[in-house]
Amino acid sequence: MVPRLAPRWPVSLFQWRVACTPGAFVQQRTWAGASRTPSWGRLHGVASISPRVRRGSSSASSQAPEVVLTCERYPVRRLPFSTVSEEDLAAFEHIVPRRVITDPEELEASNVDWLRTMRGCSKVLLKPRTSEEVSHILRYCHEKNLAVNTQGGNTGLVGGSVPVFDEIILSTALMNQIISFQDISGILVCQAGCILEELNRYVEERDFIMPLDLGAKGSCHIGGNLATNAGGLRFLRYGSLRGTVLGLEVVLADGTILNCLTSLRKDNTGYDLKQLFIGSEGTLGVITAVSILCPPKPRAVNVAFLGCPGFAEVLQTFSTCKRMLGEILSAYEFMDAECMQLVRQHLHLTSPVQESPFYVLVETSGSRMEHDDEKLSSFLEHASSSGLVTDGTLATDQRKIKMLWALRERITEALGRDGYVYKYDVSLPVDRLYDLVTDLRARLGSKAKHVVGYGHLGDGNLHLNVTAEAFSQSLLGDLEPYVYEWTAGQRGSVSAEHGVGFKKQSVLGYSKPPEALQLMQQLKALLDPQGILNPYKTLPTRA
Amino acid sequence: MVPRLAPRWPVSLFQWRVACTPGAFVQQRTWAGASRTPSWGRLHGVASISPRVRRGSSSASSQAPEVVLTCERYPVRRLPFSTVSEEDLAAFEHIVPRRVITDPEELEASNVDWLRTMRGCSKVLLKPRTSEEVSHILRYCHEKNLAVNTQGGNTGLVGGSVPVFDEIILSTALMNQIISFQDISGILVCQAGCILEELNRYVEERDFIMPLDLGAKGSCHIGGNLATNAGGLRFLRYGSLRGTVLGLEVVLADGTILNCLTSLRKDNTGYDLKQLFIGSEGTLGVITAVSILCPPKPRAVNVAFLGCPGFAEVLQTFSTCKRMLGEILSAYEFMDAECMQLVRQHLHLTSPVQESPFYVLVETSGSRMEHDDEKLSSFLEHASSSGLVTDGTLATDQRKIKMLWALRERITEALGRDGYVYKYDVSLPVDRLYDLVTDLRARLGSKAKHVVGYGHLGDGNLHLNVTAEAFSQSLLGDLEPYVYEWTAGQRGSVSAEHGVGFKKQSVLGYSKPPEALQLMQQLKALLDPQGILNPYKTLPTRA
Repeated sequence: MVPRLAPRWPVSLFQWRVACTPGAFVQQRTWAGASRTPSWGRLHGVASISPRVRRGSSSASSQAPEVVLTCERYPVRRLPFSTVSEEDLAAFEHIVPRRVITDPEELEASNVDWLRTMRGCSKVLLKPRTSEEVSHILRYCHEKNLAVNTQGGNTGLVGGSVPVFDEIILSTALMNQIISFQDISGILVCQAGCILEELNRYVEERDFIMPLDLGAKGSCHIGGNLATNAGGLRFLRYGSLRGTVLGLEVVLADGTILNCLTSLRKDNTGYDLKQLFIGSEGTLGVITAVSILCPPKPRAVNVAFLGCPGFAEVLQTFSTCKRMLGEILSAYEFMDAECMQLVRQHLHLTSPVQESPFYVLVETSGSRMEHDDEKLSSFLEHASSSGLVTDGTLATDQRKIKMLWALRERITEALGRDGYVYKYDVSLPVDRLYDLVTDLRARLGSKAKHVVGYGHLGDGNLHLNVTAEAFSQSLLGDLEPYVYEWTAGQRGSVSAEHGVGFKKQSVLGYSKPPEALQLMQQLKALLDPQGILNPYKTLPTRA
Repeated sequence: MVPRLAPRWPVSLFQWRVACTPGAFVQQRTWAGASRTPSWGRLHGVASISPRVRRGSSSASSQAPEVVLTCERYPVRRLPFSTVSEEDLAAFEHIVPRRVITDPEELEASNVDWLRTMRGCSKVLLKPRTSEEVSHILRYCHEKNLAVNTQGGNTGLVGGSVPVFDEIILSTALMNQIISFQDISGILVCQAGCILEELNRYVEERDFIMPLDLGAKGSCHIGGNLATNAGGLRFLRYGSLRGTVLGLEVVLADGTILNCLTSLRKDNTGYDLKQLFIGSEGTLGVITAVSILCPPKPRAVNVAFLGCPGFAEVLQTFSTCKRMLGEILSAYEFMDAECMQLVRQHLHLTSPVQESPFYVLVETSGSRMEHDDEKLSSFLEHASSSGLVTDGTLATDQRKIKMLWALRERITEALGRDGYVYKYDVSLPVDRLYDLVTDLRARLGSKAKHVVGYGHLGDGNLHLNVTAEAFSQSLLGDLEPYVYEWTAGQRGSVSAEHGVGFKKQSVLGYSKPPEALQLMQQLKALLDPQGILNPYKTLPTRA
């Protein structure tokens, strides 16, 4: 892409636009009149000092305290599954030769979740390469009553990806082959263990993009994305995986391979079985391959990072965006001042705009640069002249766009460095979205280090996070069921996109009626009668 | 909307643009150099003589021959359900007072499908107004082993909406209340019996549109759209109902009301049960209410109707469209010359462009008129100068856009007037899409009146239709399994969007593996153990 104008945007837009050469910093002017050091330089400097931590790597945990065993922290009892024997290990060695991991050190990273709040005690990790191998493994486990925990990039936030007790870990890490890509239609077919960022790179080289993007992209597997029905940063524009996923291959609990891996945009031949597995967190089957529709790569991408004086203005700015940017609006994210403070404190990233109570990130993606520029300029002019926005900066080249996105995407990481994190991920009517943060802040007072709110405002999705020095049952008591009851009072969802996993299974009833929970249990019993697939997750465990 | 420029587009675009006043015909010039009568006038004149036939009305059938009973035409045996007794009728009268229809004349329209190829012999039709009434009806039928055929607008094309024998018809016609509409988010909640066109009118007044549109919009019910997972004309832009439907209320076979009628864009609290019912054609439950996300009403809509010299050019024009129109492309439909001939012959609609082997309809929907105009002009200039397109006309005001759409949307109606119609609705790789039509034309020779191909090329969806004077088993033998085998050979779908209904249940195996069919049967057995919901449909009947 040709480097483009990338200024801090002034009141009279375009007037200050300065061409930049690749790699050079950009001359900036604040339209808000504040005199400040150009902030791109600082941002860039920091980015090179503190490279992005990949989720799933151990870099965040080198000096972290030991993680308590899940079965010690939570009241959970092991179900009567068999225990892995030497005979079982020999059988696995036969199915996946030299890919049976029993070394405790190697198993450590797979037994502990990314947030370091859960620890299982699995003794064996298997690394199949093909669906047939997965099928053999599951058939064996089904016969022997062995429990299985499927694991992708282990980037989940609700304890769904790690064993609770000694479940066998079935890793998709070696199932990372691209099967096909159709250049005309943009349909990608690949194995479940492909890493999202690598897939995106692959399709970008062919002028497409993946229809989803999220902070954990450097580690998460596409199979895991589907198993958890990941939402993420492109949801506003490209919609749910339930629409963009065209086909799946799944191995059922008894080893049956269910091949629904078609690449058709429309297919109404019977019930849409793939939908059962999207979002079921590995409890109904193991996703082994995926067919997904990739949108064309936009020719022009712009990101504006704006400061707003209040949440009412965040909402009004969103309405204005939708009206004035229309079909090119591709993301509308918000974060509060405390998020920015944590990102600054723990990751040394600096805000590119004046300190504000709220910040929003607006992304546009379109097919014709000059049209997008015009739409964006009109919007920014309106937003600033009407007082919705008090300061802002605009990025139009790839490197600076990444820097602005980092401010939003790395909040999770900054929170992790602040202490123990109580995470909530709720859907609410947008006009009440931030009230939950305010109410909770007042309720907790000094008991919490930080109470922050950020998220995908365009989708009505709030990430509410509370940090403390360490896990405390008392603080948990202040948080729950308060947060869930508050959400249920607004007919919201107690899990918008992170899923249920281990941590949220007991709270489904706040968002789903008993009849729905009963039907879910019936589906589980139909597809996995022995309950060997990812036990203790998603649905309340039946004794 | 202010009336806009609406010319027939010349080689040097815009140069010929002539402002039009509301209701006036538009001055047109052909850029292809042919001298022809301005065609808008003709189109308009015809439209007022021959108003659109609403699907489900009997206007198309006044002089049509009697429809043979389904059980006489097809080899199907009645399952051992109870027969409706006087006692049952009294019970229904208690549940839905004065809404129990037993008059044979009134029942006629509901016993026969819109295509007039199937006839049931139901003796009673019930018209509930509420989900509770539906629940009472189903609980009663479940207890008494009475079969139930849910019916919306009865516009289906695969015999899914009419009884096969004497099933009780459960009509959603009186469940037509809008429950709520959120002006900020565009989320509509309504009962299942609302007519699509009326919903679209309702949300258009509030600056939104329905995310789906189809030829039968004047009669079809939103509940039926969901039950059949309708695709239609806006699929290319707004995607599948599996992404845009946010919530459902469903009554299960035993009368249980499953309320998943939330209005959240994201909700990952357990399995997404609503997906089970979308596309299951009333065989797993009765959809009683719907929550659906409506996109903002585009400020600028343009439709170009183009003539292409060959199918290769139809494909190339599509690629060019995607590249040059990007995010504003909202439909790409094609029809062959025989379609145009039938529309002319039976509906007296005239082509607005020179006779061509193929025609395409390109629609753009965007937020800024001048930007869309520029994109479209560049595209049309390129398409004409490169020979992809040999003639074309452009409509930018509502009335003329409707006229162009009528050429495409009324093909089904024209086919119906041509004789008995053998309908196929398949998904295929786009580059092989039209080969099936050509192959079949050669195969059938003079045995068929017409073999035509049209459809949603942008979605890889071909509507293949064969007409004959009357139904003939011999012609059917030439068509099937040939069409299905041809489609399976391309890994296509034997039912892209019309569904399975009664007519396609035996051919699912061409697009789905045995493991998938078995799981579908298990789901049916779980949700409707007695099989009372829409029997003989969707899945092969188990004796």
